[in-house]
Amino acid sequence: MKVVITGAAGFLGQKLARALVKRGHLIGPSGKDEPIDRLTLFDVVAAAHPGDNRVEVVTGDISDRDLIAKLIDRDTGSVFHLASIVSSGAEEDFDLGYRVNLQGALAVVDACRALPHAPRLVFTSSLATYGGEYNVEVDDGTPQTPQTSYGTQKAIGELLINDYSRKGFLDGRSLKLPTIVVRPGKPNKAASTFASSIIREPLQGQSAICPVAPEVSMALLSPRRTVEAFIHAHDLPAQAWGPWRSCNLPGIDAKISELVAAMGRVAGNDPVKRIEWRPDSAIQKIVATWPGRFGWAKAKRLGFKPDGSVDEIIRNFIEDDLQR
Amino acid sequence: MKVVITGAAGFLGQKLARALVKRGHLIGPSGKDEPIDRLTLFDVVAAAHPGDNRVEVVTGDISDRDLIAKLIDRDTGSVFHLASIVSSGAEEDFDLGYRVNLQGALAVVDACRALPHAPRLVFTSSLATYGGEYNVEVDDGTPQTPQTSYGTQKAIGELLINDYSRKGFLDGRSLKLPTIVVRPGKPNKAASTFASSIIREPLQGQSAICPVAPEVSMALLSPRRTVEAFIHAHDLPAQAWGPWRSCNLPGIDAKISELVAAMGRVAGNDPVKRIEWRPDSAIQKIVATWPGRFGWAKAKRLGFKPDGSVDEIIRNFIEDDLQR
Repeated sequence: MKVVITGAAGFLGQKLARALVKRGHLIGPSGKDEPIDRLTLFDVVAAAHPGDNRVEVVTGDISDRDLIAKLIDRDTGSVFHLASIVSSGAEEDFDLGYRVNLQGALAVVDACRALPHAPRLVFTSSLATYGGEYNVEVDDGTPQTPQTSYGTQKAIGELLINDYSRKGFLDGRSLKLPTIVVRPGKPNKAASTFASSIIREPLQGQSAICPVAPEVSMALLSPRRTVEAFIHAHDLPAQAWGPWRSCNLPGIDAKISELVAAMGRVAGNDPVKRIEWRPDSAIQKIVATWPGRFGWAKAKRLGFKPDGSVDEIIRNFIEDDLQR
Repeated sequence: MKVVITGAAGFLGQKLARALVKRGHLIGPSGKDEPIDRLTLFDVVAAAHPGDNRVEVVTGDISDRDLIAKLIDRDTGSVFHLASIVSSGAEEDFDLGYRVNLQGALAVVDACRALPHAPRLVFTSSLATYGGEYNVEVDDGTPQTPQTSYGTQKAIGELLINDYSRKGFLDGRSLKLPTIVVRPGKPNKAASTFASSIIREPLQGQSAICPVAPEVSMALLSPRRTVEAFIHAHDLPAQAWGPWRSCNLPGIDAKISELVAAMGRVAGNDPVKRIEWRPDSAIQKIVATWPGRFGWAKAKRLGFKPDGSVDEIIRNFIEDDLQR
């Protein structure tokens, strides 16, 4: 069967593509394991090609309904919908955020609905769907009252995917990602990007700015575990999800100071000295709307796995992504 | 200022129009009381004209973005967005439900956003936004995991209105309506329509079918109190709402048997005998996704008022709407 990854040029899309190429199979719409004979990497810019002849790279606009209807065709058994304008990006450019994150999601679910079968759909939602009054201790039973446009658009995506799944038009699974650390590459427009920068840049010999206080707490998950979670979510049977096709992914609750201390334990004190602590009120304001504690009982029940420790998160980055 | 009611041909739209004509003023975008010098009644069919020269009747499609941008023009200080495909209707016709309830809501909020000021917007959401695992005891802090397309579309409307309000594009207030009883007129495609039919038809000398068991519990609010709530919600200051522009409206939790008993107390036993109890599995399935208990602490704090008793709900219908 054909598998489509949207947002495939992003670091998670790239890691997922490599993992799927290596794995070579997924549960198909029939409920049986099927070989992946085509993997389509879709993004607004060309995704890097992993050098496998099953892979094709397609570029375009996720909100272009005609294009997405062609992308998600009758051969498509599964879609990983990762394409998204990230938090600060959607906050700065309101129209772009709604076009990509809302109209894009609609284009994807409507393309799935048009097929004669119900493709599996894995959607990356976010802890940014929580906020406001209900942001102190968050679990799967906390109301989603987001305080950013990004969180709003992700919450809408979850609602759409649940309804389309209920109707049998697709077989959806939404994963609320905690803060993914350590992202490889360059900083992006996610408000949380600093949580990666303060580890990645110092470990690569560069300085980094931390725009929030050391006592700020975040829920952390490594890219390695995140990609494992995408595949695990995909292959779970539909009935495991119950009447709500969404769950918080596992995260380790840790203060920024604990993350930095772990880097010190794993890689010595030199990288720690490369962090400059310089508060930024715009970032702090967004981060303050995120939950202080992140529960993931449903993910645990469904067999998702967190990293073993904050130290392991640092080691995963060094093994998987460090640019020496 | 100009006030727009969408869905103005519906019974709540009609009652609201008459109430606004009588009242003649509302708080404007400036925060000060302003006279209503124009009241535009918009619907897909022509709304009845209340015979006042400030009122104009406009017909069209709520999802027609150009039309809605003309409807909600620079003179518009307030919008009551009531237009909606109801629960069973949206369940039967998936495309129509999404077009009216989602694309229609987008047309309204984007028209508001295009204005140089932030109009007040009152939106009718529903207890159908709750459901699934979290439908037993529902209050303002219960997650919205709807199990119908209608509930999904209403939850999306709330998210949009909250985000557009947060950005200052409009000043929104979403009201989650319980079951409105007793609706005047004819049965509609709402799954809850029987709750009105079993009172209205017998009081008007006709027979009625009750498709659910007598022990089914619903949260009830009279049309009179609902229209009062629309105006109260509109005139509250923005800061009263806090970071989430939505609340459950007050309802009286009552079993169908209690509603019928109240009719017996108010109007005697003859109407009660005109009810035929004939279970309908499709209706029961939808009603089962609605909450068993409906909390409304935020509405109480904000000064919204329920009916005094189930008997009062029956008496309100007899006074306001009974067709003898």
